[in-house]
Amino acid sequence: MGVFELQYDRVVPARRPEGHQPAAPRYSLRWSQPHLSLVSVYFGMQSKQMGREAESEFFARIRGFLAAADGPQVHELMRSCDEAAYDNAIVVAYWTDPTVYSRWLLASGFREWFESRAAAADGAGYWFEPVLVPYDRHETIYSAPSYRIGFARTEDAVIVPITTNGFFGAARDRLPLSAVDALESPARGVMVAPAARSSCGGHWMAAVPHNATILRSGQFWEGAGQEQLEDYLEQLQPKLMRGMQHLVANRGETGCLSLRIMTNVNEDGSPRAETSVYATFLSLDQLERWAASHETHLDIYRHAIAMNRQHKEKREVVTWHELFVVQLGNVFEYINCHPATGILPYVRAMRVELPL
Amino acid sequence: MGVFELQYDRVVPARRPEGHQPAAPRYSLRWSQPHLSLVSVYFGMQSKQMGREAESEFFARIRGFLAAADGPQVHELMRSCDEAAYDNAIVVAYWTDPTVYSRWLLASGFREWFESRAAAADGAGYWFEPVLVPYDRHETIYSAPSYRIGFARTEDAVIVPITTNGFFGAARDRLPLSAVDALESPARGVMVAPAARSSCGGHWMAAVPHNATILRSGQFWEGAGQEQLEDYLEQLQPKLMRGMQHLVANRGETGCLSLRIMTNVNEDGSPRAETSVYATFLSLDQLERWAASHETHLDIYRHAIAMNRQHKEKREVVTWHELFVVQLGNVFEYINCHPATGILPYVRAMRVELPL
Repeated sequence: MGVFELQYDRVVPARRPEGHQPAAPRYSLRWSQPHLSLVSVYFGMQSKQMGREAESEFFARIRGFLAAADGPQVHELMRSCDEAAYDNAIVVAYWTDPTVYSRWLLASGFREWFESRAAAADGAGYWFEPVLVPYDRHETIYSAPSYRIGFARTEDAVIVPITTNGFFGAARDRLPLSAVDALESPARGVMVAPAARSSCGGHWMAAVPHNATILRSGQFWEGAGQEQLEDYLEQLQPKLMRGMQHLVANRGETGCLSLRIMTNVNEDGSPRAETSVYATFLSLDQLERWAASHETHLDIYRHAIAMNRQHKEKREVVTWHELFVVQLGNVFEYINCHPATGILPYVRAMRVELPL
Repeated sequence: MGVFELQYDRVVPARRPEGHQPAAPRYSLRWSQPHLSLVSVYFGMQSKQMGREAESEFFARIRGFLAAADGPQVHELMRSCDEAAYDNAIVVAYWTDPTVYSRWLLASGFREWFESRAAAADGAGYWFEPVLVPYDRHETIYSAPSYRIGFARTEDAVIVPITTNGFFGAARDRLPLSAVDALESPARGVMVAPAARSSCGGHWMAAVPHNATILRSGQFWEGAGQEQLEDYLEQLQPKLMRGMQHLVANRGETGCLSLRIMTNVNEDGSPRAETSVYATFLSLDQLERWAASHETHLDIYRHAIAMNRQHKEKREVVTWHELFVVQLGNVFEYINCHPATGILPYVRAMRVELPL
């Protein structure tokens, strides 16, 4: 089956070392139809010690909106405890056509409900983080060809084998735009001091910086046998958590604007053997530097590669990511959230009044 | 010299009639380097009976910001009287790299000055209409290969002959994205009733609808001899004005969200023999329908074509346009403007507080 490919004649040199052959097979996503823009949207509710009932009500409400005409092709339910120790209920939804997504925004009722939260003062915070990128600003990688998650579950998505992996800079090389654009941070990677706000009541809009890099990095170990399960839980997962702690503890260096460790949940609220880290970085460059040189990432990387080599096609833990380098104009919204929510402290943010 | 071309395998049929050969030569813009995003930004000041001094001060202030590091490659000065009979001083500036534009926004001081206008209450309104589109959402046409204006004046721009002209739907066919996307209006071309606001004091953000179509259509007759000058001023220009009046008088049908007839001016404020119409439509479809079927456009079109055929390469009036079909996320901003300014009455708009 033919798949849509987008490739520009290189102006910026590739990072791939001459003659590189990857040691481990890896896979990436294509679509059989051309989709020149991709949309992934995160819907969140936050509160201190959120009960299962409140979480479940939020999931049901968002799923109600998503079920309207022009809703997403797929969505997932997740939860996350943030750095301020607030619980977050999260729904992520995927569209492969921004016109369909725009129609959904106009007619589903979500927007009106979301905006009404500002006056509702129901004790919870709400956030809405839509990511819309041109196709040439995305890349994906999967450790196995069979497990579908994230954008891989959208219609006409095809998982294809790649060889652009196994060297530092491979993620950049997989971004079609990187052939002609260095994808530099306009802020040259300099983080601003976090805004000193004691409250973020009301409705806030926060501008994602141009060329900020948004990553969803996933782990799936359902059905893993005793040996690989133990290795994952006792070896790989702790290494991953140490890496994530390093990223948020050193924001000035890592450019980490926001990071959430999320657990996928079933419809009944029970946790799945699946997590993902959803993070926003000021620049691809900073994320790459951590990946290429910091021992917290090298630890993760070496262990994952060693397990892949040891178990080969019998590897029972799937790791993957989808990455987006956003353009100017991507805005995240927060209503009655605590001031450290998402990217709020680190970017240009404005409070807005209800539409008048 | 090689130029950057972007062409997708067609999924959506072309509008070009089989075997079509255009009757008149036309030209379009390419760049020798790949620029996957294009940025054109309109800066405006409005007031009733603006004096030359105030206009000139505004031009000087904006040009001061544009002269900062990472400023645009080119800019132009214009004036326009709007439908509410306010005078508008306008500067349009062009960038071919959104990273450079973003750096300029961060460091030029423009943003801080613009936002400070909300509290200044200096009796004038200020507006800021940035247009950022992926390359595949733009198209251009010129009646002559030699005159440079708009994006054609940016570095490494090349004017090339085309044959995708002279049929209805040619503009659509020239948009690379139209090969794979019908570029439909998510609102299905339905205009909302204009917002009934008596005032728009303060700072407003207005969301340009997804797939709204922004057109700058230009006319240049400097150095035209007596015969062609008279024909332009007595025949073509009045037809053009009738067409523009029709567009704004029938917004429900035409989808016209905003339209400004602008005159280019020299540095000393004297008018040039050059105008352009800068307009935003809810959909490409509505603009096309007017162009293909309404006698106000057919009048303009037939006259321009007849003059081109009569004078051939001796034609002394140049007509051209640049057209952008924007993505969701493009926001226009208005500070202390009257409520009928720009797209304000017809789109989702919110008042924002100063950054806190």
